[in-house]
Amino acid sequence: MKTLLLKKDEVRRLIGMTEVIDAVEEAYKAFNSDQVEQPDYIGIDLPSPRGEIDFKLGYYKANEVISMKASSGGFLDNPTAHGVPNGMATIFLFDARSGALICVMDGSLILGLRTGASGAVSVKALARKDARKITSVGTGNQARMQIRAINEIMKIEELHAWDNNRDTLFKYKTDIESEYGIPVIMANSKKEAVEQADILITTTRGKGSLVEADWVKPGTHIVAIGTDQRGKQELDPELFRNAKLVVDSISQCTEKGETWHPLDRNIITRNDIHGEIGEVLLGWKPGRESDDEITIFDSTGMAIQDNTTASKIYQNAVANNVGTFFQFFE
Amino acid sequence: MKTLLLKKDEVRRLIGMTEVIDAVEEAYKAFNSDQVEQPDYIGIDLPSPRGEIDFKLGYYKANEVISMKASSGGFLDNPTAHGVPNGMATIFLFDARSGALICVMDGSLILGLRTGASGAVSVKALARKDARKITSVGTGNQARMQIRAINEIMKIEELHAWDNNRDTLFKYKTDIESEYGIPVIMANSKKEAVEQADILITTTRGKGSLVEADWVKPGTHIVAIGTDQRGKQELDPELFRNAKLVVDSISQCTEKGETWHPLDRNIITRNDIHGEIGEVLLGWKPGRESDDEITIFDSTGMAIQDNTTASKIYQNAVANNVGTFFQFFE
Repeated sequence: MKTLLLKKDEVRRLIGMTEVIDAVEEAYKAFNSDQVEQPDYIGIDLPSPRGEIDFKLGYYKANEVISMKASSGGFLDNPTAHGVPNGMATIFLFDARSGALICVMDGSLILGLRTGASGAVSVKALARKDARKITSVGTGNQARMQIRAINEIMKIEELHAWDNNRDTLFKYKTDIESEYGIPVIMANSKKEAVEQADILITTTRGKGSLVEADWVKPGTHIVAIGTDQRGKQELDPELFRNAKLVVDSISQCTEKGETWHPLDRNIITRNDIHGEIGEVLLGWKPGRESDDEITIFDSTGMAIQDNTTASKIYQNAVANNVGTFFQFFE
Repeated sequence: MKTLLLKKDEVRRLIGMTEVIDAVEEAYKAFNSDQVEQPDYIGIDLPSPRGEIDFKLGYYKANEVISMKASSGGFLDNPTAHGVPNGMATIFLFDARSGALICVMDGSLILGLRTGASGAVSVKALARKDARKITSVGTGNQARMQIRAINEIMKIEELHAWDNNRDTLFKYKTDIESEYGIPVIMANSKKEAVEQADILITTTRGKGSLVEADWVKPGTHIVAIGTDQRGKQELDPELFRNAKLVVDSISQCTEKGETWHPLDRNIITRNDIHGEIGEVLLGWKPGRESDDEITIFDSTGMAIQDNTTASKIYQNAVANNVGTFFQFFE
């Protein structure tokens, strides 16, 4: 019995974005096909300047893999005091046929990859087929990941980006243009950026409404990424009044996603949620039904996305003899 | 940033029973000193012939270590179908100052060691000082561990043992006599064995009352180990009517320990629980107060015991340069 150990650089080389998109699509379908168990996550909150460490468990019946992701975040002093990043992650994979620990892999890239892929999966299912212009509110790592993923599945003609900080915005423009050759227009205001969007992506992890409802033109698809905890918010709740709302998980999004805000304000009820994206991907519920409707995908992130992505990385590692085997017991 | 990997054989060599007893005593005291966070455990139950896999999280503020134990059990086909044991365990240690994964160790020995130690800690706190005769109802691995631990803290003059299966009983006698030089009397009945006890240990994981109340003589200390899940039972609930009941955790023992049974039968109320063992060890509540009282220690097992035990093993490994360092990221 040996356990495969995978370093961050090996994980990076073992999977491409198209495989992550496939893995996330599989995860969403599995979630709605009674193939998944995801108990509530558990964690420890530590006093500032430390952050939290969370443990998210997922079991995917089809591949018989149980995944546990340990992820930390918000440890402000880590780089200076401990020489490690503010957040780290490790994924542990268990063979559900025996309970054996089959793999320990660095997980610091996986959250970014699978979250980027979730936006692309929603674009395939919900954006207009003639969408060409993307607006990014947010210019951080996840704003880059979203473009990396969506660029795999459609032709992006131009990208309108906004950030309070012009230097950060300029860096985003330079990076995206050099990496993907997509022209990036640095918007002078959020409003100006949002008005251009066929697809609007929000990745700010903001704490208040950033996007006003009347800025969004008919036919826009919104990828709402930044809100995965109570207290975070990016969108004007009024946006939900006449939009088609698709979520990754109804239980999670009504509890702590962007969807919580319009529910809390009684702008929509739970019945106004069109469905979970797995239901759309499986063909059980329609996706976009007209060029005029505004669609919103609220993504909070699910353990099963880590499971299918990490499982694919593990399979690729075994197939390509990458990684280090370690025998914890005879 | 490197993670220490420890194999089962290394774990075995890195800690002795006296250190485990100290670690468990520290864990109990810490639990009652606001030094511990133990979220509810999470797990996945798999269909027979598979078992379950559980994840138990503990944070000990004094040593700033967060432990996660992944343990599986009840996979009946494992030895034949997968060449691995029916149950396995791994312990992951995180530095709570940074969130970094500092150690992954095989955990298959730790449950047995720390559970054995828990009985010894209770004997120190609650048994008569002149106790010399032990009765063991149960002759499995944990029945051996209890003797190994208690033998470290008192002189055992004779051991009365009972098991349905005479072959198993004889093997237990042979093993204990050769390892510890303690004479083992194979009892002809449970009653005969129990009547001899200064200290009675039950480790059967039984599903019904095994020990009748009127077999137990005044002054006996009972170490109730086997019941850690609803549905398991070893003691006649009537035993609790006039005994001093000490538990490891009131919330766990009232929920799923031996204590559940007399509560369920209204033989005792929650107020009749004398206290948690940490309170006794800290001197906040008295232990044994007379040579005549019957004391019962109900042990369900806590994540913090894994934490302090595994932390000691980790410290010993670092101090002695044992184990393999692995760098999951630069």
